[in-house]
Amino acid sequence: MQKLFQYNWQVRQDWFDWCRSVPEEELLKKRTGGVGAILPTLFHIVDVEYNWLCELDGRTDFFNDSYEGYATLQKVEALSERLHESVQAFVSSWSDELESKILQTTDSNGEAETFLYGEVMRHVIAHEIHHIGQLSVWSRELDQKPVTANLIRRGLFK
Amino acid sequence: MQKLFQYNWQVRQDWFDWCRSVPEEELLKKRTGGVGAILPTLFHIVDVEYNWLCELDGRTDFFNDSYEGYATLQKVEALSERLHESVQAFVSSWSDELESKILQTTDSNGEAETFLYGEVMRHVIAHEIHHIGQLSVWSRELDQKPVTANLIRRGLFK
Repeated sequence: MQKLFQYNWQVRQDWFDWCRSVPEEELLKKRTGGVGAILPTLFHIVDVEYNWLCELDGRTDFFNDSYEGYATLQKVEALSERLHESVQAFVSSWSDELESKILQTTDSNGEAETFLYGEVMRHVIAHEIHHIGQLSVWSRELDQKPVTANLIRRGLFK
Repeated sequence: MQKLFQYNWQVRQDWFDWCRSVPEEELLKKRTGGVGAILPTLFHIVDVEYNWLCELDGRTDFFNDSYEGYATLQKVEALSERLHESVQAFVSSWSDELESKILQTTDSNGEAETFLYGEVMRHVIAHEIHHIGQLSVWSRELDQKPVTANLIRRGLFK
């Protein structure tokens, strides 16, 4: 489980670095698909990861800010770093016994919903990879080479 | 490990179904990013998954056909089904003891390269999710709602 999170964090950092090579207006520009722009996508990834893991961790200090206050590369990257501490702590402490633990939650309509912890962890992993795939298309629209999505050859298993 | 493969297979089937709602020329049309078109992306996903798992399984019956012979939805979907049998057998037989087994292989330049089995499995998982993210952008370009990328609420953990 941890390796896929580490992959996502490496790839996310590579995209923050990539963003520095692109004019900021391109990061904010409305695009087709996903959440509709590059920087809001990175913000959304950070937000979703943090809030799900916060819930799994039994904490209530959710991140509720809207994107509007974070509309610069520097702010989104700083947010990602700030929220990373507790995210990393939870992921590091993950063990197989948590796989079948039940999360009782509510959906966006306030209806009761249950998930397994292992289900939510994989959802968070897939969520980030999916949105990063969208960034790769937008990168080519900008005539920029995207960050590699390869998981191999990243030194993650040394 | 198995759950993320099952997620990918479900999502892939949903995309094949989605493809049936779109004129075939749209599936073949050149687009920006990734492998450059919808149907070749699905072909590429099937090809890459099969060949990596074939290698992990110690088999040599690689899939070497080029996309050109499969340029219809029906053919790509039939290929996916045909190759799925051995893919599923390998994934079903996966156990944690295989995580650290070493795969000796060669890269595209013929240079020797080693990976851990667990590394390759996660690479294959991330590879499909990443390319599916690209399909979701192209879907919106077609004014079509993409297949949901959510891993939760798919019945995978019942």
